[in-house]
Amino acid sequence: MDGLLLDHTEGQSFLTEAFKVILEEVLTKGTDVNEKVCEWRDPAELQLLLDLELREDGENQQQLMQRVRDVAAYSVKTSHPRFFNQLFAGVDYHALAGRFLTEALNTSQYTYEVAPVFVLMEDVVLSQLRLLVGWGEGDGLFCPGGSASNMYAMNVARYRAFPQVKLKGMWSIPQLAVFTSQESHYSVGKAASLLGIGLESVFLVKVNQRYITLNTQKCPLFGAVPLLVSATSGTTVQGAFDPLDLIADVCENNGLWMHVDAAWGGSVLFSKKHRQLMKGIERADSVTWNPHKMLLTGLQCSAFLLKDTTNLLKHCHCANASYLFQQDKFYDVSLDTGDKSIQCGRKVDCLKLWLMWKAVGTRGLEGRVDQAFQNASYLVDKMKKREGFQLLNEPEFVNVCFWFIPPSLRGKQNIKDYQERLSKVAPVIKERMVREGSMMVGYQPQSRRVNFFRMVVLSPEITLQDMDFFLNEIERLGVDL
Amino acid sequence: MDGLLLDHTEGQSFLTEAFKVILEEVLTKGTDVNEKVCEWRDPAELQLLLDLELREDGENQQQLMQRVRDVAAYSVKTSHPRFFNQLFAGVDYHALAGRFLTEALNTSQYTYEVAPVFVLMEDVVLSQLRLLVGWGEGDGLFCPGGSASNMYAMNVARYRAFPQVKLKGMWSIPQLAVFTSQESHYSVGKAASLLGIGLESVFLVKVNQRYITLNTQKCPLFGAVPLLVSATSGTTVQGAFDPLDLIADVCENNGLWMHVDAAWGGSVLFSKKHRQLMKGIERADSVTWNPHKMLLTGLQCSAFLLKDTTNLLKHCHCANASYLFQQDKFYDVSLDTGDKSIQCGRKVDCLKLWLMWKAVGTRGLEGRVDQAFQNASYLVDKMKKREGFQLLNEPEFVNVCFWFIPPSLRGKQNIKDYQERLSKVAPVIKERMVREGSMMVGYQPQSRRVNFFRMVVLSPEITLQDMDFFLNEIERLGVDL
Repeated sequence: MDGLLLDHTEGQSFLTEAFKVILEEVLTKGTDVNEKVCEWRDPAELQLLLDLELREDGENQQQLMQRVRDVAAYSVKTSHPRFFNQLFAGVDYHALAGRFLTEALNTSQYTYEVAPVFVLMEDVVLSQLRLLVGWGEGDGLFCPGGSASNMYAMNVARYRAFPQVKLKGMWSIPQLAVFTSQESHYSVGKAASLLGIGLESVFLVKVNQRYITLNTQKCPLFGAVPLLVSATSGTTVQGAFDPLDLIADVCENNGLWMHVDAAWGGSVLFSKKHRQLMKGIERADSVTWNPHKMLLTGLQCSAFLLKDTTNLLKHCHCANASYLFQQDKFYDVSLDTGDKSIQCGRKVDCLKLWLMWKAVGTRGLEGRVDQAFQNASYLVDKMKKREGFQLLNEPEFVNVCFWFIPPSLRGKQNIKDYQERLSKVAPVIKERMVREGSMMVGYQPQSRRVNFFRMVVLSPEITLQDMDFFLNEIERLGVDL
Repeated sequence: MDGLLLDHTEGQSFLTEAFKVILEEVLTKGTDVNEKVCEWRDPAELQLLLDLELREDGENQQQLMQRVRDVAAYSVKTSHPRFFNQLFAGVDYHALAGRFLTEALNTSQYTYEVAPVFVLMEDVVLSQLRLLVGWGEGDGLFCPGGSASNMYAMNVARYRAFPQVKLKGMWSIPQLAVFTSQESHYSVGKAASLLGIGLESVFLVKVNQRYITLNTQKCPLFGAVPLLVSATSGTTVQGAFDPLDLIADVCENNGLWMHVDAAWGGSVLFSKKHRQLMKGIERADSVTWNPHKMLLTGLQCSAFLLKDTTNLLKHCHCANASYLFQQDKFYDVSLDTGDKSIQCGRKVDCLKLWLMWKAVGTRGLEGRVDQAFQNASYLVDKMKKREGFQLLNEPEFVNVCFWFIPPSLRGKQNIKDYQERLSKVAPVIKERMVREGSMMVGYQPQSRRVNFFRMVVLSPEITLQDMDFFLNEIERLGVDL
């Protein structure tokens, strides 16, 4: 079996070397403020540097270790204290240990037989998340991301209303209407397209001072049956929270499924101080909550939670495959939870969260959430006092959205091409910071607002110095614009 | 920030300890034939042993390390040479190094900005897989499992035929019909339900000597438009291959999308000797192929490949989110491939396959596939010569399906309750092997066939001794039945 590289001793020796590279390059240098957050290369140059091509013959161990180093070197350091570019950042070492263990154990979360520890563990973790939502019982599963969780909600809602759809398809049921806010995540629309409901059946409710006002009586699609409201706790860009009690009233009065996309905001439920942002969450039918965002579990960890206790999730999705879910097994086959899923093989996503939670306790997670709010608040205070930084609004959460007004545009709001010129500021500053590797933060336009930055202060590892650096760096990069 | 456990030095020390446990318990003991493949505990007992409950306060590092040990101890060792229970098994250390690095880098496969290495790498890996299919160009992405990949195929096929479905839903298009074989994977049905096509619109074509005979002219649903055939290369239970050229003829003549679910069988394309099993694959429109099965990359690694060069995948799924896919970026935004996906955040699944491929080369992967065929062939020969082992058929692939006929039933095929008694043999043997932890292999009934074992010899790490052990062990466990 020459050339197949299957020797355990040699293999483990390579893995141990790779582990050292990971420690040095990704976890030590990659989290050091004196090192770059990214080592930018233009695509053509990077392609050459990496020599990605796959060939007939393999390489020697030394070459392969250089591959490991190269991948580490040119990847973005998302655990770096100056990475503010996405809704994830930072590193938790217990979670990471859980992730390594998950990878090494390499099993699938579908039967007790092949994943005994993880079947029991997923149940406990989901129960604890449900308790924070306010549900003493219920159902759920971990999904490959928040978009998938939101899609599950829509599918289960449709099945509850029209169970015949599973067998007979959409032609057997009336046209449906789905409601969500203008600033909700795009996955609601993607789910509607995928499920055959269609994007035009998704009605975007106007956001008024970032609050939803919903009236399904005015459903603009004549004859369509209102099915579901997908409310948002923590919108992607501004971090706004829909008023859940108000939406729950509408859903109850109209018999609609109430889903809450709390992929981003859900973690405020850990905080006694901030959980009122989600007041009314216990009235929802289902919730999406991604611990891989604010809680630092690492990608992917997305919980889809249901209040339902009638096994709706399984009825909606089961296919009863006889090669996997044999009914004559010698243990309680209700532990074979895989048939609740639209997946067959399913990655184990519970261990990283469980081990981290065991390490810091509910109290520790609460502390981390509160810390992130404090950091955001510090940043907002500083911005208010500083020339050239204009907040979009007073943040509810840890998304701090702002324009940087360069010296040449200050006090010139009334000139004709002000908005046009302002729109070009963020992309230039972004390019400069990425090419230098000093930090990373996202920007975007939104409805009539031209490009603004979205600073996300979620990692509790961030210090006040990091935020001072951020403000100085934006200014430094934009002072000549 | 007391209690938040965010110190890098302490964290890295914990991670290093955990890595040692992984090496010792999972990768050394867990692959040692003298150790158990699983340490079975009944659910109630395991629940107690693991102390899964999550509490207000965290635990100390010593307790947490014991947690790591416990999770390892009671999890099934899927890399053990006597694990034959699923369509994955074995370990490749280069792939595992790639998986650890992926976890540590913790990024999302959606933009060049945040995943520069992986955007380029995914493209190269998918290109190489497409070349093996026989396509010089095309499209694709890695998905969270084969079920998701099959679902993509159905959605893209629907969009190609009726692009209005994305906006207007299923009510705007005629009823559809989908064709697949009786022994295809259940995910085809799950996808039809999810997409609103409905399970009753999936027509199961009879398997004749394990070969599909398809005639869409006889579509049993009056007025329905035939949309897609989902052929299978390597069925889940028997490892059978549909005749792709025959199916391609039908699809071409009827304008149907031809999808091939080669989640399991796709890896035969590496083998010059065995790739004729998939003769005609280049005529398909799309292919599902899971390197996490036969190629040992580890879960999850599922490629969805398309022949299309018109950007159909993106047109079908894009939502153009302005916060992620800004059009005024300073690099070629066609590299921001995330909008092809129905996910938003997407795990990086290419690195493990790429690094393993770099290590062993195309030739090494071919060798592994050929090795698995040889092992299966050895086992089949032994079974034919051995009393008590009855093959279902001559295997095409590495699934070896057989009944064990215990001494009390030998030569009694004609007694009235023979089938009934035979059906109870496999579950008892399975229970015994799992309780002892000596090995793991799956069983199932299929159509009129009562419970039989499905032995899967996929890992090239398996020796002839392991297969002799397998036969002896089945006999030992079933000799008194």
